[in-house]
Amino acid sequence: MSQPEHVKVDVAFPVPATMKAWVLGDPGELSLVDKPVPVPKRAEVLVRIDGASICATDLEIIAHGPPAQIEGGLPFNKNFTPGHEYMGTVVALGPGVDEFAIGDRVTVEVHAGCGQCKRCREGMYTACHNYGKNYGDVDKGHRANGFTTDGGFCEYQVNNINTLVHLDESMSDEEATLVVTGGTAMYGLTEIGGLVAGDSVVVTGPGPIGLLATAVAKALGAQPVILTGTRDNRLEIGKRLGADHVINVRNENPVEAVRKLSGGTGVDFVVECSGAPNAVNEAAKMLNRGGKICLAAFPSDEVPIDLAYLARNNIYLYSIRGEGKSATHRAEAFMRQKRFDASIIHTHTFDMAELPEALRYVRERVEDAIKVVLKNTKSSAPGKTDEPATASV
Amino acid sequence: MSQPEHVKVDVAFPVPATMKAWVLGDPGELSLVDKPVPVPKRAEVLVRIDGASICATDLEIIAHGPPAQIEGGLPFNKNFTPGHEYMGTVVALGPGVDEFAIGDRVTVEVHAGCGQCKRCREGMYTACHNYGKNYGDVDKGHRANGFTTDGGFCEYQVNNINTLVHLDESMSDEEATLVVTGGTAMYGLTEIGGLVAGDSVVVTGPGPIGLLATAVAKALGAQPVILTGTRDNRLEIGKRLGADHVINVRNENPVEAVRKLSGGTGVDFVVECSGAPNAVNEAAKMLNRGGKICLAAFPSDEVPIDLAYLARNNIYLYSIRGEGKSATHRAEAFMRQKRFDASIIHTHTFDMAELPEALRYVRERVEDAIKVVLKNTKSSAPGKTDEPATASV
Amino acid sequence: MSQPEHVKVDVAFPVPATMKAWVLGDPGELSLVDKPVPVPKRAEVLVRIDGASICATDLEIIAHGPPAQIEGGLPFNKNFTPGHEYMGTVVALGPGVDEFAIGDRVTVEVHAGCGQCKRCREGMYTACHNYGKNYGDVDKGHRANGFTTDGGFCEYQVNNINTLVHLDESMSDEEATLVVTGGTAMYGLTEIGGLVAGDSVVVTGPGPIGLLATAVAKALGAQPVILTGTRDNRLEIGKRLGADHVINVRNENPVEAVRKLSGGTGVDFVVECSGAPNAVNEAAKMLNRGGKICLAAFPSDEVPIDLAYLARNNIYLYSIRGEGKSATHRAEAFMRQKRFDASIIHTHTFDMAELPEALRYVRERVEDAIKVVLKNTKSSAPGKTDEPATASV
Amino acid sequence: MSQPEHVKVDVAFPVPATMKAWVLGDPGELSLVDKPVPVPKRAEVLVRIDGASICATDLEIIAHGPPAQIEGGLPFNKNFTPGHEYMGTVVALGPGVDEFAIGDRVTVEVHAGCGQCKRCREGMYTACHNYGKNYGDVDKGHRANGFTTDGGFCEYQVNNINTLVHLDESMSDEEATLVVTGGTAMYGLTEIGGLVAGDSVVVTGPGPIGLLATAVAKALGAQPVILTGTRDNRLEIGKRLGADHVINVRNENPVEAVRKLSGGTGVDFVVECSGAPNAVNEAAKMLNRGGKICLAAFPSDEVPIDLAYLARNNIYLYSIRGEGKSATHRAEAFMRQKRFDASIIHTHTFDMAELPEALRYVRERVEDAIKVVLKNTKSSAPGKTDEPATASV
Repeated sequence: MSQPEHVKVDVAFPVPATMKAWVLGDPGELSLVDKPVPVPKRAEVLVRIDGASICATDLEIIAHGPPAQIEGGLPFNKNFTPGHEYMGTVVALGPGVDEFAIGDRVTVEVHAGCGQCKRCREGMYTACHNYGKNYGDVDKGHRANGFTTDGGFCEYQVNNINTLVHLDESMSDEEATLVVTGGTAMYGLTEIGGLVAGDSVVVTGPGPIGLLATAVAKALGAQPVILTGTRDNRLEIGKRLGADHVINVRNENPVEAVRKLSGGTGVDFVVECSGAPNAVNEAAKMLNRGGKICLAAFPSDEVPIDLAYLARNNIYLYSIRGEGKSATHRAEAFMRQKRFDASIIHTHTFDMAELPEALRYVRERVEDAIKVVLKNTKSSAPGKTDEPATASV
Repeated sequence: MSQPEHVKVDVAFPVPATMKAWVLGDPGELSLVDKPVPVPKRAEVLVRIDGASICATDLEIIAHGPPAQIEGGLPFNKNFTPGHEYMGTVVALGPGVDEFAIGDRVTVEVHAGCGQCKRCREGMYTACHNYGKNYGDVDKGHRANGFTTDGGFCEYQVNNINTLVHLDESMSDEEATLVVTGGTAMYGLTEIGGLVAGDSVVVTGPGPIGLLATAVAKALGAQPVILTGTRDNRLEIGKRLGADHVINVRNENPVEAVRKLSGGTGVDFVVECSGAPNAVNEAAKMLNRGGKICLAAFPSDEVPIDLAYLARNNIYLYSIRGEGKSATHRAEAFMRQKRFDASIIHTHTFDMAELPEALRYVRERVEDAIKVVLKNTKSSAPGKTDEPATASV
Repeated sequence: MSQPEHVKVDVAFPVPATMKAWVLGDPGELSLVDKPVPVPKRAEVLVRIDGASICATDLEIIAHGPPAQIEGGLPFNKNFTPGHEYMGTVVALGPGVDEFAIGDRVTVEVHAGCGQCKRCREGMYTACHNYGKNYGDVDKGHRANGFTTDGGFCEYQVNNINTLVHLDESMSDEEATLVVTGGTAMYGLTEIGGLVAGDSVVVTGPGPIGLLATAVAKALGAQPVILTGTRDNRLEIGKRLGADHVINVRNENPVEAVRKLSGGTGVDFVVECSGAPNAVNEAAKMLNRGGKICLAAFPSDEVPIDLAYLARNNIYLYSIRGEGKSATHRAEAFMRQKRFDASIIHTHTFDMAELPEALRYVRERVEDAIKVVLKNTKSSAPGKTDEPATASV
Repeated sequence: MSQPEHVKVDVAFPVPATMKAWVLGDPGELSLVDKPVPVPKRAEVLVRIDGASICATDLEIIAHGPPAQIEGGLPFNKNFTPGHEYMGTVVALGPGVDEFAIGDRVTVEVHAGCGQCKRCREGMYTACHNYGKNYGDVDKGHRANGFTTDGGFCEYQVNNINTLVHLDESMSDEEATLVVTGGTAMYGLTEIGGLVAGDSVVVTGPGPIGLLATAVAKALGAQPVILTGTRDNRLEIGKRLGADHVINVRNENPVEAVRKLSGGTGVDFVVECSGAPNAVNEAAKMLNRGGKICLAAFPSDEVPIDLAYLARNNIYLYSIRGEGKSATHRAEAFMRQKRFDASIIHTHTFDMAELPEALRYVRERVEDAIKVVLKNTKSSAPGKTDEPATASV
């Protein structure tokens, strides 16, 4: 046992000194190495990672480095462990922690927030002004595991208690890895209004966030919920998650279809999850006057936007990041209460050691993979001595 | 006297049966004609127009027709009286009105709202879903004088009482015509946060709205308030209205200058009033994480926008229209209390009969005209018999 | 047909010139008389009343006169028709109305709002400053049918279109009369936070509002939802509507029980629906720091309140009236989507002609009556010639 | 020098190992003793206290113990240093702190918040669920200096950086001690609406918070601002701080006077700062429908409240604690910009060593003391060897 004395552990949950962890090397290069198991500090716990799912952003980070690097111009981080959608079991407590007990099942949201800056102080912790500033020796208290601090493609990780959500026994590990995606959808719907019962909502793009945005909108009582996309099989999944209508944009003009479905007046909200270049302009034209757009996906390049149309129609655009405003807790509550079955979008499971292959499934949409979950089934025994593996992905 | 019996009038404020009014003909064609003085209905009063100022939007409407026509494809409205920034004296009351008395000085906001639709019901009356729907025989109750119903480039106009703001004797007619512009600035600052004391605000573009946005931001306690523009004389006026710093974008990079002034971290809010093609992208890069942009001006064509930057920094964009959320009342309160001197931006005065020349001053910025005010000094006597005049402007 | 020409009617929905209507005489005296069928004006429709339910407030009004009289000291209104929870069929349209069609099934919210005052302008139409001011000749545009204008204990009533909610065919007339009660519950939950998924909520008092507040809180995702009351049978109904826990305050201390159920920390929200004298103090002690109380019921006399406890714990108290913020639409959406079965609280049905007996059921809780619904089954045929009836109730 | 190595100090600001500090003994007993100078940890700085003012709550704490003790039943804290309104100079930095530099002048707000709990996560840090939980060995990260952790009646204190406000050179030490009181007033006005320009506000009770609430309401543009109280000299001070009208409740009925001043309709907001037993009932009757009350003072005993009146008029009651929502920063901005002269309420200055006499001035209102400021003029030199002093106060 390598833990300092003040860290509470339990013999039923033995914690090894080292673990297997995937780390980034050169762009696109991942290696499975031994790393020390991190030690939780004040207001932190150590989580044994029982499941992790793969997000499209993970592919970006693996290919290009963490966003903070991109934005801040830092060098590619060569010992960084990606992965931000994970769940597990609390196996050790930092000093003074009594909000969680050893053995608790938990899932995570990403942003710990520094708790000190202007944005954290106003409850906007996903816009923490110390985001990405705790590289090296400086510790501003901010953590965004899988973005600016080590993430979940490994066996153990420390989390601030403010990023943890208690899980009910009724939710499987695999479904629990999806809570954070549901939280992003909930955050978007929170920012554009929140109380959307009886309001009309379009979700554009049936990727994981779009599908759960469909589910969350319906759980919140929106009617109708309209989902647009290019693939009928995805749209069918959207129907199972609560879409009242689906529109295949290959077959019909989505703006016209939405306006027709809304009796000519347009809808109240659009949650844009496609990242398509013309998505914002089309979203605007789907809306009625005073409508709102949540931007949960975006194209990487600049795209032409009709600002005049936005202004003439008093349309607001909320470009969200992460899953702020405690949205993950609200998503978990709906999932616990079985308001929708998020597990529908979980399509594949791999062992954590098979991360490169799992990433391929997501990247190439093998067998129409939506959410691919990693389990530490093979590698989680203490004292394992597998050879380090490296893969270009 | 031509008023129906239930309309309360006062011999001290005699109301003629007809008046002089400017009306739109073909695009760019204005004629001064005789029109019946309108009669106030329930919840309306008749306002004798004592002053009206010219907004850039008036130029648009005169050249291209009212926005509702542009949007809805209606034919150019050949008997429409433009002008939406005016003030005056209550000279007759609709049935049951006791909120105002004959003789009261008032200024206006534009949007009456229908009071029936979803948006009006939630207090978003500038996004009324019946905007522009009361042409012809249909009366949905919505009025936007100068946009969808006759405006103020004439001698008398009816206004819903919910569009009126009581004026104090201490405010001149000319300054009172600027309350609505102050209201637009206040609306923008309301939507992006409202409580901006101690927060940093950039205003881009020192036109009338930008200059009053500078003044309102300072009155609300923002610090610093930074104004950007291309003309030093306008920036100097901005300083007199409360700008702590001004940046001439011809001389320095405004993004770099703003970031430097904010200690490298960026500001909390940008109120974009320039309509420049790159304004939103620059605004985003002026902001800190979680910052907000109010779009109070916009280019007529689509422009490239870096949505990825907005999303990565959790930036929200509020494309306002009009002066909703009762902002005009708050603007008037600050102006009454002399928190700033809006009259600085009033540069020229013409008689209402000289509207074409006044419009030229605004359009061509003759003598650096900012706000040009029209007064009914010559034409307001009952029974005048001037010849109709027509001008191509 | 007695309708003016501009009122659109349909031969399939013939409208008689007169109708049967209950009217107030002396306190406690109700008479069934012939009244002219009212004519809808602009933004109004005529509703044929197919169902009406009885609220405890109706008992108050019948015994003491409308609240506006109590507050304003007006004389007891001798020709007033009470009843504010009703639904029916649109049978005639005021001029220009196209938001509804003849034959549409609708239910109502109470407050039309004047659309002119400060509160209506900000979307707080249930706090309209012209409430109760349209007696006699003055028409400020405000209507609160059953409170300040004639209500639903009759055959036909006019409603502002902004008070109407479209009904789906799947909802019975009886259930539809309960939408307004669900709307009150939804308004309360809106004001105290709205986004309560995963938050803990106590509802005190299992009357109609309390039971639907339980249902709405659960539909919004609250967990746990705890209902307190004195009668086990009512608490059992609460369980069927979504209560996770019930507390019979005759058997255990509710404050202690709530704190125990919340792990010692107290809950986030209390919706007080009992009107018990000590309810606010107990609610405060059930809450955690920063918790909120919605006051949806109240004792008629002053009661001692521990303001120091409220202040030390930063507790806010929202004393709601009616069902503002468009809450009725959100309630209907949840009911249409079968998130809870409001019809559980509908216990008895009477013919409209039997109103006095129906009132007795509610007042004396005969057969544990909760919601008693009146139907116009007997009296709705045009041309009926029943004798006027009078009853002291 | 006693500081650990990672604490940055500066020879220009030498920090001694021990300091003089007042500590609580038995109720009402204060002693001036030597205490170790505390050491700032991560996200903390050490502040040399240059000025501290006395709040009525300090008198309560000295007489009865800190509120957390009262609430939680902890024993009277025998080594506790009270004082929560102070300002000073940063003299040492905790590890990693670069938001402040040694030599910076700062003033404080009280609540650090734990940064982990539900309330802190939503920006309601003054309602932190870990308030008062960091006695003994447990450190939940919460600090409320002068309430749950040592305060400012001494020479040095550590503060979380999130409780600090940068000061401009133009503000005197004495005025800077009043920022936190202005922050409480600002918090109250924030919670009841914030954007109060043009709205009518009554402040009841011209104590320090009431007087600064008057000033802040006026700075925010409220009109009229009406102040009620029992002493003409205090009301005169209120006029100098921005009251448009004052009402001496000994001479006239304040409810009638307010309703008369508001044209019969009542005002929009009441900020109750008197703690009088009937204050809430009177506040309610001063309000118009939909008005709001901020409770910034309260009687110690239960008082009878007319809940029916609150509910019938849709009145909300906000019982604030502290100065949340970053209100202190907004108060400082207004004070820096000289929107009002808070120093008017600073009436007396004592040396820190004279705390017992200064407390007497406040308690007995000697020479109509309002805010009494303590300065460390005599005792601040390192190495002083004054005898410990004890006083019963």
